[in-house]
Amino acid sequence: MTPLVKKYFLKLPHASDDDKTPDLERVLAGLRREGLDVVSVPVSVIRKISSTLRENDFEVTATVCMADKPELIDVEPVQPTLRSRSTGIAVDLGTTNIVCSLVDINTGESLAGASETNPQTAIGEDILARIHHCLKPGGLEELRLAAVGAINDIAGRLADKAGIPASGISCACISGNTTMAHLFLGLDPYNICRAPYVPAANRFGMFRAKDLGLNIMPEAPVVVLPNVGSYVGGDVLAGILASGMAERDGISILVDVGTNAEIIVGNRDWLVACAGAAGPALEGGVVNSGMRAAPGAIDRIKIDENHEPSFSVIGDIPPAGMCGSALIDLLSELFRTGLIDGRGKFIPGRTERVVNTEGGPAYKVTENIVFTEKDIENLIRTKAAMYTALTVIISEIGITFSDIESFFVAGTFGEYIAADKAVSIGMLPDIPINKFKLLGNSSLKGAVMALLDLKAVEQIEKIASMITYKELNASAEFMSLYRAAMFLPHTDASLFPSTYKS
Amino acid sequence: MTPLVKKYFLKLPHASDDDKTPDLERVLAGLRREGLDVVSVPVSVIRKISSTLRENDFEVTATVCMADKPELIDVEPVQPTLRSRSTGIAVDLGTTNIVCSLVDINTGESLAGASETNPQTAIGEDILARIHHCLKPGGLEELRLAAVGAINDIAGRLADKAGIPASGISCACISGNTTMAHLFLGLDPYNICRAPYVPAANRFGMFRAKDLGLNIMPEAPVVVLPNVGSYVGGDVLAGILASGMAERDGISILVDVGTNAEIIVGNRDWLVACAGAAGPALEGGVVNSGMRAAPGAIDRIKIDENHEPSFSVIGDIPPAGMCGSALIDLLSELFRTGLIDGRGKFIPGRTERVVNTEGGPAYKVTENIVFTEKDIENLIRTKAAMYTALTVIISEIGITFSDIESFFVAGTFGEYIAADKAVSIGMLPDIPINKFKLLGNSSLKGAVMALLDLKAVEQIEKIASMITYKELNASAEFMSLYRAAMFLPHTDASLFPSTYKS
Repeated sequence: MTPLVKKYFLKLPHASDDDKTPDLERVLAGLRREGLDVVSVPVSVIRKISSTLRENDFEVTATVCMADKPELIDVEPVQPTLRSRSTGIAVDLGTTNIVCSLVDINTGESLAGASETNPQTAIGEDILARIHHCLKPGGLEELRLAAVGAINDIAGRLADKAGIPASGISCACISGNTTMAHLFLGLDPYNICRAPYVPAANRFGMFRAKDLGLNIMPEAPVVVLPNVGSYVGGDVLAGILASGMAERDGISILVDVGTNAEIIVGNRDWLVACAGAAGPALEGGVVNSGMRAAPGAIDRIKIDENHEPSFSVIGDIPPAGMCGSALIDLLSELFRTGLIDGRGKFIPGRTERVVNTEGGPAYKVTENIVFTEKDIENLIRTKAAMYTALTVIISEIGITFSDIESFFVAGTFGEYIAADKAVSIGMLPDIPINKFKLLGNSSLKGAVMALLDLKAVEQIEKIASMITYKELNASAEFMSLYRAAMFLPHTDASLFPSTYKS
Repeated sequence: MTPLVKKYFLKLPHASDDDKTPDLERVLAGLRREGLDVVSVPVSVIRKISSTLRENDFEVTATVCMADKPELIDVEPVQPTLRSRSTGIAVDLGTTNIVCSLVDINTGESLAGASETNPQTAIGEDILARIHHCLKPGGLEELRLAAVGAINDIAGRLADKAGIPASGISCACISGNTTMAHLFLGLDPYNICRAPYVPAANRFGMFRAKDLGLNIMPEAPVVVLPNVGSYVGGDVLAGILASGMAERDGISILVDVGTNAEIIVGNRDWLVACAGAAGPALEGGVVNSGMRAAPGAIDRIKIDENHEPSFSVIGDIPPAGMCGSALIDLLSELFRTGLIDGRGKFIPGRTERVVNTEGGPAYKVTENIVFTEKDIENLIRTKAAMYTALTVIISEIGITFSDIESFFVAGTFGEYIAADKAVSIGMLPDIPINKFKLLGNSSLKGAVMALLDLKAVEQIEKIASMITYKELNASAEFMSLYRAAMFLPHTDASLFPSTYKS
């Protein structure tokens, strides 16, 4: 594996009457002895070479960007922690959350991780609001700076945790959807959401941290993962990479549900993608007591024979709400224990846990956390949209769910979800449960892989070039399938034999 | 010839439902149709593509840097003046003067030219003072900004003259001596003048205008010509290139006299260089009424049989002083007409033009312009140093002056000089006068050549790798030869047969 950057420890001969090699060329000669032919050096680095050599007895650490043609991007004093460790930051730049991981790019070890709400949400809650905000003078720059500022913030904290200066982080990879990547780079997203839906760019390439405003090593290479048109972003490509589905013979499905839901079907020879807005109900904000999977979120929940709940909370603190996996658990459990019917309506008189609220009848999880019929309705819409999209896409490809070898579940959605529960409410198809593979934050995982190996970046570009995007039109057929899916688990019982059996 | 940058006029298809190519990829596809495979685009350029395409009906001018791997460095509206013209600025960054030329890099035509006193002279008169100034906190940055500011100033004026915005200047080449290149780039020159005399770098490479503070096209490539150690700078390499001596079979000498004097001897197979501080007397400042070759400078002067002067003035305005060529003329004429003896002393009673001044006896050119015995002494020192250096270097190589096929005279010195006069005072060797070739500002000419053809930059690097530097030690032999040359034209008459003949 060739990581994006490499550090070299150089013990160089001193300049003398017999060796008048200039300082820059002396460092390059040292790297050549290590087998590396560096061909370019930014002026900011040339400026520090002379003093760094002379203040450190000609023993320095050289950082080289390995992408494309080797470039010397830093020369610094030798420090024990830095000598052996090349660090990079992987960024999952989500519409709602920004999740970062600081990794040792030689070993792949995660040194520290953290996440933050994307501060752009305060400017525009969803993608469309943010694209609209860019019409205002300075609006795009405001959004760009919000994202860059948040990443700098997190990078600073992660560096602190790892005991290195932020300026020691020597590379970065940004994985986001098409609009997020545009806003991060300061590219006008106007045409992403307007016919004929053309992004400013698909392949962004590699930049320098200083040109993007990132406060890490100034000349650090920053890979912004490419996208495929307006609807398939780098986050999805990262997920495909992380799943390995594009290297397999058998057909896989990858479902990536963040704020939007994307579905990818394919193998090493072909990949088909479709997308739709399906996620908000699972991320908090739409469902009454929903919240993102963060400390204080209930992530797992069961209902016993007395209709009493038991649950686990992320971070072992008092619960503040429920994340997506708990919402799916709860819907499944309410249905299994007979508290709601197939349409998601509470059956009166079953338990005192069901109370009346402003949102109609609701199941009381705790004094402050309730799950209303309105919430259930939202969640059923989400699961129906997901299942319909899956059905339509495989039918258009001309396969059935039984042809699927692996079913990857990724995104916020895939971090804590119980696949069997998602099947039991008819959100995911009823296939053998061992075919489901939870990827967790595959956008972040793919970004880490891009830092660890240049071949991963090439592979992502290859994946991008393989993808065919299918528009899931709100056709009459789609709407009819969608209506049929608005039932727990489905109006067609034959589609969910394992649920009906249990 | 492949110039450093090329402009392409692109008339692109509009985005449509049938052609959802993103904006960036649309421009790259247009360039591919022109046979150009662009591989990288800076973020600042990606940012302007969408609006530039849409505000100009998808007809734009793309500027591509051709060095190394093609890079798209600007996309702008099509303008008649810009469509056909790619412009670059060549900079002769001299210790005393900065001379710039704005050229059409497709035709080589000079669109405008201008020069300015290097504002660094106000901070430190000579190279050593400036290197010393860099020891002060902020001193290097002060010098860097002075040079960059002056170049920006001139670039703005040249662009105005040519009727283009300064941001339309799409490339630059900087030619200067080793210290000037260091100061321009912000590299510490401390070790240039201290044993073992090691520059921070010999090969600087190519930078972007924005990274150097140049106010031209932000991503414009800026070539800073390389140097060969502390004493042979890019200005000399540019001169060698401009002379063509490194492509010839026959042996040439190139003498480049600016503030310092460099001598190069060689042909296509070998090049030997030596250098020394010989110039100041010819540039003004050292000689009483000396000044640089600028409007108001006497550049040519004769003395008639009545010992009366006649002269021409640059710019046809009242004379303010004498430039190097006039000083050499005048010394030659004073000697030829018998007003001074071989040691440079005025012979009393010959003419009333010789008056007494604070600097001793002096020849009065005008009421305000006098040439003192002290000035003559300085000039004789300069010419003796030059001749001695020439003698020593060819003797060390093992050739004689008769082996020389061409004798190139370059630098400030070479712009207006009369070779026969320089021979007559024993500054240049007494070889057939048609072997002398005046190159003018060959530092600037070489910089222009580097803008017009990438091969010229390669050729300069090849020249740099060929050069052997010889130290002209103040040995006993050198001092003895120097003393012998402190006579007009020389104590050994056999060396200057043509002068003694006339």
